[in-house]
Amino acid sequence: MEKETCCSGCNRPDLPWAGRGTQLPISGCRFTLYPMCDNFIDIILGSLKKTDTSAVWSETDALSTVYRGKLAYVADAVQALFLNAYRPGVHMALEGQFSKGCPGDVSGDSVLNREGDAPNAALVKDIHFPVHCKLALYPLGDADYIDEIAKVWYMAQDEGLDPKTIHYATRIDGDVQDVFAYLVRVCELMENAPNVHHYVLHFTMNCNSPTEEN
Amino acid sequence: MEKETCCSGCNRPDLPWAGRGTQLPISGCRFTLYPMCDNFIDIILGSLKKTDTSAVWSETDALSTVYRGKLAYVADAVQALFLNAYRPGVHMALEGQFSKGCPGDVSGDSVLNREGDAPNAALVKDIHFPVHCKLALYPLGDADYIDEIAKVWYMAQDEGLDPKTIHYATRIDGDVQDVFAYLVRVCELMENAPNVHHYVLHFTMNCNSPTEEN
Repeated sequence: MEKETCCSGCNRPDLPWAGRGTQLPISGCRFTLYPMCDNFIDIILGSLKKTDTSAVWSETDALSTVYRGKLAYVADAVQALFLNAYRPGVHMALEGQFSKGCPGDVSGDSVLNREGDAPNAALVKDIHFPVHCKLALYPLGDADYIDEIAKVWYMAQDEGLDPKTIHYATRIDGDVQDVFAYLVRVCELMENAPNVHHYVLHFTMNCNSPTEEN
Repeated sequence: MEKETCCSGCNRPDLPWAGRGTQLPISGCRFTLYPMCDNFIDIILGSLKKTDTSAVWSETDALSTVYRGKLAYVADAVQALFLNAYRPGVHMALEGQFSKGCPGDVSGDSVLNREGDAPNAALVKDIHFPVHCKLALYPLGDADYIDEIAKVWYMAQDEGLDPKTIHYATRIDGDVQDVFAYLVRVCELMENAPNVHHYVLHFTMNCNSPTEEN
């Protein structure tokens, strides 16, 4: 554990954020929605109004929003926010990072007593549109983390998401429901991997991209 | 080296992307510009027209663009693209990841014979505006990488960028020139750290955010 840290350099007794986060049952996602249109505020606020965030702890600043709690509810809220923001023809991107187990994490800033179905699942399950997605997985504190990453690449292949290695990331493509389901399975795999105490999964997906690919 | 990998799980002989990237002198940045307005295409293409990208290898897909070459030229091109895209009052974000030393990296897809001044430096040096920025640094293959991360946090403090630890990232604020200069110094520190064979620095900065912070 000594050598583990999050991107902020936690778990150093001499630093302000030192902590014992790897033992905490808190999953989180820091994300930002980017609707590329003049009324981006209406789209984001309108989506927030439709999305039930009662199952997660939430905090928003000028750059991003973070949801924290149980993975299933965190993922449900992030996915619902993106799906509820969808507008035919509007180019929109979602950038985020799922994470759990940062040694510098603190108890609190989370909702952990929620049980039952994810509150948005039924409402968004029929929203379908194609997305492009790139992801970069960083399992920390696991000498064999390369094996976890390989598992995840093959998982994308098995799920028909056509993974491609691009510089600095893995690219996948598919229906937004399948891509989110895959990202959640990657998180579940990391959270249940005995050797992974801390992981970060960076992802960016977009829809209605005007860029044509060859 | 055996245990090193990039986010795509490279450096596995049994995987298609296996390679010896840690020895390559290629720095890169994969990034996306998000102008939150209807004419986002004009802003991006207009900025590209103003930006000299002759010192880097470049590839664009539906999600992002990647520049590869020598760090100084890669950073110069990314910074210039963001600065040239700036419009007073237009909310815009830049998401990116600087990286070097991925064991799965391949020679080629780069410009390495460029010398002399960065082509955009003089043209953009007088463009100033405040930005918010969050960053997450992942030095890989260094048992003591926590020390590198701590150095970087204190560096932000020394440079007056007011670093704050937020869940899953570090937040800094300042003039766009100072924030870019800091990000480049972080990359330089990683690229010259004897124990760091591979690093990834994720960052997101934005300007003209409508979100007021307390």
